[in-house]
Amino acid sequence: MGEFELIRRFFDRGDRAADGVVKGIGDDCAVLAPTPGWQWLVSTDMLVEGRHFLSTVDPERLGHKALAVNLSDLAACGARPRAFFLALALPRADAKFLEGFARGLFALADAHGIALAGGDTTAGPLNVCITVMGEAPQGQVLLRSGARAGDELWVSGTLGDARLALEVFRGTHSLPGDQFVQVRRAMELPQPRLALGQALRGIASSAIDVSDGLGGDLGHVLKASGVGAEVYFNALPRSAILAGQDLMLQQQCLLAGGDDYELVFTAAPEHHEAVKDAGARTGTRVTRVGRIRTEPGLDVLDSDGAPMAVLLASFDHFKS
Amino acid sequence: MGEFELIRRFFDRGDRAADGVVKGIGDDCAVLAPTPGWQWLVSTDMLVEGRHFLSTVDPERLGHKALAVNLSDLAACGARPRAFFLALALPRADAKFLEGFARGLFALADAHGIALAGGDTTAGPLNVCITVMGEAPQGQVLLRSGARAGDELWVSGTLGDARLALEVFRGTHSLPGDQFVQVRRAMELPQPRLALGQALRGIASSAIDVSDGLGGDLGHVLKASGVGAEVYFNALPRSAILAGQDLMLQQQCLLAGGDDYELVFTAAPEHHEAVKDAGARTGTRVTRVGRIRTEPGLDVLDSDGAPMAVLLASFDHFKS
Repeated sequence: MGEFELIRRFFDRGDRAADGVVKGIGDDCAVLAPTPGWQWLVSTDMLVEGRHFLSTVDPERLGHKALAVNLSDLAACGARPRAFFLALALPRADAKFLEGFARGLFALADAHGIALAGGDTTAGPLNVCITVMGEAPQGQVLLRSGARAGDELWVSGTLGDARLALEVFRGTHSLPGDQFVQVRRAMELPQPRLALGQALRGIASSAIDVSDGLGGDLGHVLKASGVGAEVYFNALPRSAILAGQDLMLQQQCLLAGGDDYELVFTAAPEHHEAVKDAGARTGTRVTRVGRIRTEPGLDVLDSDGAPMAVLLASFDHFKS
Repeated sequence: MGEFELIRRFFDRGDRAADGVVKGIGDDCAVLAPTPGWQWLVSTDMLVEGRHFLSTVDPERLGHKALAVNLSDLAACGARPRAFFLALALPRADAKFLEGFARGLFALADAHGIALAGGDTTAGPLNVCITVMGEAPQGQVLLRSGARAGDELWVSGTLGDARLALEVFRGTHSLPGDQFVQVRRAMELPQPRLALGQALRGIASSAIDVSDGLGGDLGHVLKASGVGAEVYFNALPRSAILAGQDLMLQQQCLLAGGDDYELVFTAAPEHHEAVKDAGARTGTRVTRVGRIRTEPGLDVLDSDGAPMAVLLASFDHFKS
């Protein structure tokens, strides 16, 4: 199977007809038509075997996750997804792998109405690089820099299951089989919160997605906004499975986990009901987990309101 | 050196101030402002060690080439470059490599006024994936599908030196030292024809850049346009060095070479002077090398106008 046959067979679905894609796969560039008055949002993520996924991963789940982590960045900006580009290095043109990968990739793309508009394939060590493009009305993009003292701090979904699954894969922890299936699902099939992100335009003051752990990612928001925060540990939303683990492991998974792809966002207290509405309208659980303050730094408080001694280090690709 | 320090030290130059980049590195997404009435052109290329560059490559030249091959796709569409995104997998955070790579990358970016607006870094086998974005006025994008019977066929610059250099690296051919320096330069420092591409809007009927060899790339144009072509072998522009090699090697380098990153384009005969003007205005050599015909297929003609028996196979990442 040659390069062009590979593209034709697995990736070229004639997506040029998709909304806003004037010309998709098959020319030097894709041609996209911007919506007048909207801005473009662009993000790129590279996934490497052994770093971002295990060699044993189901190709279908890899296809899903490679796109999901990118869409999650669009969600954090409140963007509507428009088009994505796939660059893929493969040790060999393996039809079974490609079939599963494409199935997972396109199932998620179709669920969110985003077209594969171009890409590149080459032989090489397995590497998946996706670039996503979305749009938001000018001036309504959710940024990291908008958090203000007094804002409420919110989290979507639940946190920590992906990290719990990783600990089982690493052999540092064990779970009953059915529980492992569930947390593994959280790790391998994250759901980008695109509907919620768009519903939060004009409501949230800042947002970020949790890819490297709540502590580290919230830290980016605090730094960009020049504020501090208090997080109520007991309020952090977690699955029943994680809630059944010992406190140290819960702390680690909830605060320094990563791979959650939930949104952490801030909103003024007067938007409290609007945030809950946005969650309800989009079928997304939203939980208030803390507040933004003037004083710099991040404190995690126990049920008595006392700061806990917790490890907030998040993931760094060149340090861990 | 951690991931964030690496980005700050080598790649974050605060390019957000660049034309059209509202927000660059440092949020979940970059925010770009489209020019009203223009369309976006997007292309992505992934470069892998041993496939697209040798392990011994000068990092500065690698930085140049990784961006150049992407900009060449924008050139082929007649686009004005706007922003690019860099995803980089590195075996380790090697300051010397990164310094050289960033120097070559930004020298070319600055020469063409394009900003690095975002990206991703990770540990992994060396892999450079760049996505470029440019703009062209709606309806003026140069596509592969516009060639018409009777059009003249043109090539920019000279062809074949990059392939000649590759043959020397492969040990199948040898050159005197100063000649090798020159052809190696063609291979490692290709110049994307952005000014020419933009000057050809409204003049050329189709265009493509030569990345996989003239035969193969012109074949894409013929297929997309539903036409055939005749190429005058003796007219193909080549360096004095390549002209000094035997005929078989010249054929191979000129027709099935690759890595040239010159533009191959078509234009109606009444635009002949306009094409020459566009070349002169942008300081780019342009040479008429053939004509488009109704009859399908591609014939390479000798000086008597007789078809030559030539090998037109171009490069395929999963076949060669």
